[in-house]
Amino acid sequence: MHHFSHSTINAWDSRYRGNFINSLSGFKSVSLIGTVNAARQPNLAVFSNIVHIGANPALVGFINRPLAAAPHTLTNIQATGCYTINHITPAMVAQAHQTSAKYDEGVSEFAQTGLTETYRDGCAAPFVAQSTVQYSMKLVEVVPITHNNTFFVIGAVQDVYLSHLDCVSDDGFIELTQLGSLASLGLDGYYSANPLARYAYAKPDAPAKTL
Amino acid sequence: MHHFSHSTINAWDSRYRGNFINSLSGFKSVSLIGTVNAARQPNLAVFSNIVHIGANPALVGFINRPLAAAPHTLTNIQATGCYTINHITPAMVAQAHQTSAKYDEGVSEFAQTGLTETYRDGCAAPFVAQSTVQYSMKLVEVVPITHNNTFFVIGAVQDVYLSHLDCVSDDGFIELTQLGSLASLGLDGYYSANPLARYAYAKPDAPAKTL
Repeated sequence: MHHFSHSTINAWDSRYRGNFINSLSGFKSVSLIGTVNAARQPNLAVFSNIVHIGANPALVGFINRPLAAAPHTLTNIQATGCYTINHITPAMVAQAHQTSAKYDEGVSEFAQTGLTETYRDGCAAPFVAQSTVQYSMKLVEVVPITHNNTFFVIGAVQDVYLSHLDCVSDDGFIELTQLGSLASLGLDGYYSANPLARYAYAKPDAPAKTL
Repeated sequence: MHHFSHSTINAWDSRYRGNFINSLSGFKSVSLIGTVNAARQPNLAVFSNIVHIGANPALVGFINRPLAAAPHTLTNIQATGCYTINHITPAMVAQAHQTSAKYDEGVSEFAQTGLTETYRDGCAAPFVAQSTVQYSMKLVEVVPITHNNTFFVIGAVQDVYLSHLDCVSDDGFIELTQLGSLASLGLDGYYSANPLARYAYAKPDAPAKTL
């Protein structure tokens, strides 16, 4: 095995370390988060550090970078209490990545990228019409991560919209490859996924079995 | 779009909702977390809710389920302050999934699954010899998520071990597909990944460009 020590990693320049450490933790859930500010101006930004917290209640979290680097999404969520999360497909990946550019406040990433904003009852924030998986979220808690000035934003899943129904298995599993949802890696890599296997609930007295 | 309302989702039985909500947030970083208890007995468990928090300092978080459901990993981390995170490849996916069985405390998942424990200087916790990506972690903070009794466990990356060097790009990006690292979906689905594109740093006045 090739060893990269803690001191070696600390000595790297920040861009190299950023690419390496962002890749190290593995493939990531990547989505577009849609918000509005108090004046109902829309904002859209790509986020890859999204994590499932629990299903009952249905909670999803994401990491928001320090406010100086990424102010709009979190500020809007705190102003309105709601946001949308929208999956990214191959047809929209360039537009999705482009939302990471530092546009001025009040500039709509929808208008700049050509992605289409859609509004639905019960949610002030815009959905992305091109996304095959869209869901609305209600803010639950913002946990400051004091060690690097980021924020762990916890939300409750509200309404879910899927472009197709046949991707939902009899047991509720959503086969996201059928919806074209992408994964990401590092700061800028996008990936499609191929199913390898699903496994049955594991028991101590029996070997793992595929479903 | 097919609409699943908040009240529909809440009315599902817990297993169906668990599969649906676990899939909804997208493809996940899946890894084996290795720990020891105070008596140096090893434990190994598969975790899929792992999230990159930041690169400077290098921080990675994961969600630990309520202690009644999943006591060993978190208790061991709190006792020793350290743990390892090890990627999963296709050759070891059945063994990795099997670590999710509820073995009694003191039973080693290494012995039960045939995965090989390896120890290295500077880390009390075992690495998984079969993993092509292995890294050691130092506990930074355990944040209780009061809304569902889970825990957000924040750690600092210490030492990193890769089986090959040629997967590391000149800019530090690790092409994990060359190392066979898998992603997961839901509670029990495992996926390989295919690179689609990397994109250059996005700027407001220029369209997205692939690297």
